[in-house]
Amino acid sequence: MSRYWSRFVHDLEPYVPGEQPKMARLVKLNTNENPFGPSPRALAAIEAANGDDLRLYPDPDASALKAAIGEYYGVPVDQVFVGNGSDEVLAHLFMGFFRQDKPILFPDITYSFYKVYCGLYGIEYQTQPLDDDFSIHLAAYPADNGGIIFPNPNAPTGRPLPLAEIEALLQRNTDSLVVVDEAYVDFGGESAIALVARYPNLLVTQTFSKSRSLAGLRIGFAVGQAPLIDGLERIKNSFNSYPLDRLAIAAGIAAMEDVAWFKQCVDAIVAERDALTAALTARGFEVLPSAANFVFARHAAHQGETLAAGLREQGVIVRHFKRPERIAAFLRITVGTPEQNRALLDALDTLL
Amino acid sequence: MSRYWSRFVHDLEPYVPGEQPKMARLVKLNTNENPFGPSPRALAAIEAANGDDLRLYPDPDASALKAAIGEYYGVPVDQVFVGNGSDEVLAHLFMGFFRQDKPILFPDITYSFYKVYCGLYGIEYQTQPLDDDFSIHLAAYPADNGGIIFPNPNAPTGRPLPLAEIEALLQRNTDSLVVVDEAYVDFGGESAIALVARYPNLLVTQTFSKSRSLAGLRIGFAVGQAPLIDGLERIKNSFNSYPLDRLAIAAGIAAMEDVAWFKQCVDAIVAERDALTAALTARGFEVLPSAANFVFARHAAHQGETLAAGLREQGVIVRHFKRPERIAAFLRITVGTPEQNRALLDALDTLL
Repeated sequence: MSRYWSRFVHDLEPYVPGEQPKMARLVKLNTNENPFGPSPRALAAIEAANGDDLRLYPDPDASALKAAIGEYYGVPVDQVFVGNGSDEVLAHLFMGFFRQDKPILFPDITYSFYKVYCGLYGIEYQTQPLDDDFSIHLAAYPADNGGIIFPNPNAPTGRPLPLAEIEALLQRNTDSLVVVDEAYVDFGGESAIALVARYPNLLVTQTFSKSRSLAGLRIGFAVGQAPLIDGLERIKNSFNSYPLDRLAIAAGIAAMEDVAWFKQCVDAIVAERDALTAALTARGFEVLPSAANFVFARHAAHQGETLAAGLREQGVIVRHFKRPERIAAFLRITVGTPEQNRALLDALDTLL
Repeated sequence: MSRYWSRFVHDLEPYVPGEQPKMARLVKLNTNENPFGPSPRALAAIEAANGDDLRLYPDPDASALKAAIGEYYGVPVDQVFVGNGSDEVLAHLFMGFFRQDKPILFPDITYSFYKVYCGLYGIEYQTQPLDDDFSIHLAAYPADNGGIIFPNPNAPTGRPLPLAEIEALLQRNTDSLVVVDEAYVDFGGESAIALVARYPNLLVTQTFSKSRSLAGLRIGFAVGQAPLIDGLERIKNSFNSYPLDRLAIAAGIAAMEDVAWFKQCVDAIVAERDALTAALTARGFEVLPSAANFVFARHAAHQGETLAAGLREQGVIVRHFKRPERIAAFLRITVGTPEQNRALLDALDTLL
């Protein structure tokens, strides 16, 4: 606390990211990183860009990266926005679109950063309860709102929504912005980018941190019709002219272009997710159906917190959320390599 | 314009960065980049970090980078904040400290992003006129303010302030925050970091983009007493958990540690600045005394805009500001290599 702070700073409740332990040799299944490395073409692009030109500012518009994303999704460049990780993209869109007279809506169990952005920008929100099976129930979202945001698949549950339900929401909800946060969509969801051309109030966000294996480089993006992208650019250009550095831009382009590597890694993770789900189920876990690169699972006879602590003692780190109470029994486990998943199961077998 | 924007977005006047031309072979003296490449140790650190670990998030606190900065300046780690370029650091401090009941103060001719941040966060400001010789006149800054910010040396004039004048301000102005923006201080100014231990309301910002030749990687930092840094961390952790990527952190540490390279580049730029100042003066320019890596100069017989356009036709890019009118006659010219400065002078000789 300091008398020099702006008044609201004291009341902020910052986001707490998953631990980034500095010890080596851990089986790290707590922050949904990709167990496979980035595309070799991305590493080669970094090597090529690593030289004296780092003395120069990057392209403030990162237009070559926007073009690569637009090319992949078949959308024009003026429908693409990029930022320093999708968290920065989300922060800008909360500020640029969600400061409305009415509260915004999001699920009661979801990415916990949404509430933090609301605190940062003084945005009112109302949470909407997940169904009994932990799925998002869009049909129940009230029409009178300042905006809607939800992840698809949802985090930390991993449950996906059919695109038809999202389109039904868009047909009903035309007066406010709908944001679909697709951080995990490549692992089994259907992207709403296909709907962007038809809905001027749809914005879709994605990240290079999961399916493209570049969490270490901080690249996120949004796709929406040009007036929405223009709004984001106005915020970005009033905040930081050059949010993406030269190496991130170079690696991002190469990662987006290397479709074969991307598909191979995603396919391997999906196969491992199915195997892990079966192995956990066989050990007495209830595993929510996941379309993400993690599973959300609870055991009938063991508390989530106890299991997480027991795994940790054996060098396996998973994520446990104490709140809300409804998910306190669950563990969120990132799908790792076959070896990592084997280590997880072996460690669990000593605890169950 | 979009009906889905928050209301204030329409009125934003975003910052316009200096052009980053995509043509090669230009003599680029418009954005105050370092004419010399980064430390070879920084390039080696990037090479060492360029691998599969990029799939993992960076350290959200970038604590090793903070330690390297703290080591260089002899301050504890809890007095160091880092961000994605000093523009992000400035954005966070405007939000975290300058949203006060009273207007903040800054020079009428200074870094034009300050006004943009005020627009973004709804902060009132009053500009304070530079003296007739274009120096900042801190003694005239009114006591009744919500905060004070100024660059030292000032941009785009290049004029430095003696540390004694800054300390006199701090002794007089104890009720609000004083921010010294030291983007260019290494080229001849005196850093106010030396005063941090004694003044709880002093925050000093710096960048790796100029003297450390890493504009392409986006690294900025702030030094102040722990409660101020804590306030910045609260904002940062409510905005983006991981603003600095793995390669930027690795390169930043190496660049901070390679003191010999840093000093050699800075000394060469200072020598070139003096030579360029003499050469411009000999050609009829008035050159303001600069402690930065650029000079601010006007010619008695030629308009700034005309000269900038004529130089551009010959492949030499400098920066010209149309407003405010008081500086419209000036060119801001980055100090380049001897070859670049020679090319500038040769091009000028065809125009004068």
